[in-house]
Amino acid sequence: MSLLVIGSVAFDAIETPFGKTDKIVGGAATYASLAASYFCDQVKIVGVVGDDFPQSEIDTFNQHHIDTEGLQVKIGEKSFFWSGKYHNDMNSRDTLVTELNVLGTFDPIIPESYQDSEFLLLGNLSPQVQQTVIQRLRTRPRMIVLDTMNFWMDVALDELLETIKKVDVLTINDAEARQLSGQYSLAKAAQHILALGPKYLIIKKGEHGALLFGDGKIFSAPALPLEEVFDPTGAGDTFAGGFIGYIAKIGTINFNNLKNAIIYGSALASFCVEKFGPEKLKHLTQKEIADRVQQFVSLSKFEIL
Amino acid sequence: MSLLVIGSVAFDAIETPFGKTDKIVGGAATYASLAASYFCDQVKIVGVVGDDFPQSEIDTFNQHHIDTEGLQVKIGEKSFFWSGKYHNDMNSRDTLVTELNVLGTFDPIIPESYQDSEFLLLGNLSPQVQQTVIQRLRTRPRMIVLDTMNFWMDVALDELLETIKKVDVLTINDAEARQLSGQYSLAKAAQHILALGPKYLIIKKGEHGALLFGDGKIFSAPALPLEEVFDPTGAGDTFAGGFIGYIAKIGTINFNNLKNAIIYGSALASFCVEKFGPEKLKHLTQKEIADRVQQFVSLSKFEIL
Repeated sequence: MSLLVIGSVAFDAIETPFGKTDKIVGGAATYASLAASYFCDQVKIVGVVGDDFPQSEIDTFNQHHIDTEGLQVKIGEKSFFWSGKYHNDMNSRDTLVTELNVLGTFDPIIPESYQDSEFLLLGNLSPQVQQTVIQRLRTRPRMIVLDTMNFWMDVALDELLETIKKVDVLTINDAEARQLSGQYSLAKAAQHILALGPKYLIIKKGEHGALLFGDGKIFSAPALPLEEVFDPTGAGDTFAGGFIGYIAKIGTINFNNLKNAIIYGSALASFCVEKFGPEKLKHLTQKEIADRVQQFVSLSKFEIL
Repeated sequence: MSLLVIGSVAFDAIETPFGKTDKIVGGAATYASLAASYFCDQVKIVGVVGDDFPQSEIDTFNQHHIDTEGLQVKIGEKSFFWSGKYHNDMNSRDTLVTELNVLGTFDPIIPESYQDSEFLLLGNLSPQVQQTVIQRLRTRPRMIVLDTMNFWMDVALDELLETIKKVDVLTINDAEARQLSGQYSLAKAAQHILALGPKYLIIKKGEHGALLFGDGKIFSAPALPLEEVFDPTGAGDTFAGGFIGYIAKIGTINFNNLKNAIIYGSALASFCVEKFGPEKLKHLTQKEIADRVQQFVSLSKFEIL
């Protein structure tokens, strides 16, 4: 089934304890669409870049059957650029540079051929842009997943709450769930957030896995204890892309399928962090993904007699 | 099978955002032996109290079939006393008072009737006292579990490393695993720590569950997302007691049984935090425990087709 992904397509410069990159390709839609492409062969991007964005990267999208008709290229302008430096624990980072460039005036135009999209991933962007996309789709997608971050809670909470009302699944991290709800207990935070509108809430806990709340149930997904996290950039976007890509493949939205989607999303994210940027996501095989998912199965399986 | 538990038997005064207690009964051996008593009917305590320790609490142990022959009562002396205040997030606390009292000169005497103990839990105490217990048992128990904390890594690292060499299972939290190994990645920390001697390592992650490493495998156990953590005091001791109590009941030491033991230990710990002190652990039923364990099963179960 078809999946529309909206988000930044950008340049990042990343420094981790393991090394440093020059400008490499990044952005929420880049990570998410590549991850989704392993499950869904009708991924469509809406985004914007400048004319500094390399054609070779657009070719990479297309090789992954990702439709780039909705990726606007602004001649004479520059792509969004973010630069950050991770601390030794890899759990916190400093933003060194943020140059909005084309993203500052981004108007998400939906190509006519995207109008029938059955699944929609609203990657991390301003809630206003995310909401515009929902409004411009003549038929509401069967499932809308919203990814956001603390920044929007700080600067655009009202717009964010309006957008959250309109989606099926919200994905945020544990600190953001606490910020959004004002509750320290994640179980209470989830009740509070589900009352804001979404049917399901996913709380991403990084190295501690993820929690899914909805249908009166809770699912706790493990994270692989990795020996090395090389670069965490894009892990959350990759998770979201793998998650909704898997659901778009399966086609049926229920709690059990969402659980599996979290495992697939986590598996894709565990690959993502093994190399700088989205490099690892460009060359995965279905066998590698299946093997990694089996690692999640062995990791968390137990049988009480 | 018989289980010997050594650790503090003490008074605590606890302040949490939910309230404040006067001196109530606490101590590692108290929590651990009560937890173990739900699985094993031959739990034996080695510990020391002053004559201020109420007979009614010793009666409670005995009602749980916990043998207190090894619980020394020092006439004219006072029991160990700890007072602490938890911060709002319940994950960190300040120690307000530590009065060692009888624990300062504790010589762990093993009654003759304890000599055949097949399982040994070395609750959090000085590594030297823990080691003395191992030396005084004429037959090495089939399984020795060592619980310890960062304090002993700070002040008695050499003795701790000597003790760790002699045990089968080490239980510490994630910060302690990082401190002991000098590794941030828990996967690497585990490799480092297993090389120190123990066959299995359990890393307790509080609200994020626990990890078991050993036999070249990893198991990730979930934690119940609780709406309210009323008082986390003793949760780690309760976990350790439930863990080894379950193994003492089953009798066979292998990775699969250790996985289940972690689930049972986690279930007991999830009860422990619902009330101040060990109160909740005094009145559980087998049905309540079985129901709680089923919650862990539903929480983490998924089936990849």
